[in-house]
Amino acid sequence: MSHLRCVVLASGRGSNLQSLLDVICQKQVDASIVAVLSNKEKAQALERARKLGIPDFWINPQGYPDKKAFEGALLEIIRTYQADIILLAGFMLVLSPFFIQQARVPIINIHPALLPAFPGLHAQRQALEYGVRYSGCTVHFVDEGVDSGPIILQAVVPVLPEDTEETLSQRILVEEHRLYPRVLQLLCAGRIACRGRKVMILGEGEGNE
Amino acid sequence: MSHLRCVVLASGRGSNLQSLLDVICQKQVDASIVAVLSNKEKAQALERARKLGIPDFWINPQGYPDKKAFEGALLEIIRTYQADIILLAGFMLVLSPFFIQQARVPIINIHPALLPAFPGLHAQRQALEYGVRYSGCTVHFVDEGVDSGPIILQAVVPVLPEDTEETLSQRILVEEHRLYPRVLQLLCAGRIACRGRKVMILGEGEGNE
Repeated sequence: MSHLRCVVLASGRGSNLQSLLDVICQKQVDASIVAVLSNKEKAQALERARKLGIPDFWINPQGYPDKKAFEGALLEIIRTYQADIILLAGFMLVLSPFFIQQARVPIINIHPALLPAFPGLHAQRQALEYGVRYSGCTVHFVDEGVDSGPIILQAVVPVLPEDTEETLSQRILVEEHRLYPRVLQLLCAGRIACRGRKVMILGEGEGNE
Repeated sequence: MSHLRCVVLASGRGSNLQSLLDVICQKQVDASIVAVLSNKEKAQALERARKLGIPDFWINPQGYPDKKAFEGALLEIIRTYQADIILLAGFMLVLSPFFIQQARVPIINIHPALLPAFPGLHAQRQALEYGVRYSGCTVHFVDEGVDSGPIILQAVVPVLPEDTEETLSQRILVEEHRLYPRVLQLLCAGRIACRGRKVMILGEGEGNE
């Protein structure tokens, strides 16, 4: 596999972005993050990029007449930076089918639940309110549904009786920071293959991390 | 807690019934299965009961004008045997709200998936087709929805790349045979308490088996 050029979309503090930057900086993967985009001006993710000299862009949805125009602006930057892949890392807007179709590169997301359980917002709160005994996180390809695309890897954590949304989120986050870099490694090694909605991890015993 | 009188409803081979009978026979729990009911004449579950001298009943749905009458027949037997609890063990019919309301004792079910993922029939096939990396089983209270009631315990198993419906079912079944007796033990010990749709396991660190 040749070097993988990644664009990251993030809305928040960017801890998943940081976990990706860490494996890249440690030269564990042959990839680079060529730009970080956010819909939030104050996203800490943008700061993290800036510190490392990675081009960062705040794209203000309010500055565009509609979602398509906003997404068009995202796409323009993504094309300018010749991204091979788009990684969503706490990007809190749902991308439209227009974006998905026009991106022309794979889009990957990380979600703090064992999909298909608890898609959408506040997955950890949903899990607590439902009363499940296990939750976790899922890295998946993005399709036109909400958190419904083919699953690449998942990780499981217990839900404890005393858990709050915060403690559960923190436990899941530890796994997120392990899982997303692992997927980046597999992508760089060319070891991820799709067959319909099933994702094959090429090489032995790698499906369950 | 006093001795727990259980009625089991089953449609199939009754391997979960057997796992419950095993812990009862080994005197690990203060419970007895006072009757086994099935909608299927040839259900091996009925045979298993018969061998142990437990009253077994084939209730043929075709023999009743409607579902309510069929369920009324089930309820009559359940009352005759003064059941404290109804345990569904591979019972393949959905019980109506009428049954749930009239039963007047808790009803518990075991489902071969990590609910709320993959409710309903063919849960293992659903999991394989979706492409999840982990599945498992869930013991839960029955409410008026399909596999939607409060969760008591869950167990997780990996889904392997080479899995068929059969191999995944077998791996989950091993956990089912561990989980359902565990729930019976907790019930007998009076250690299961409901708070809304959250199930508390009284005593330390018991939520995740």
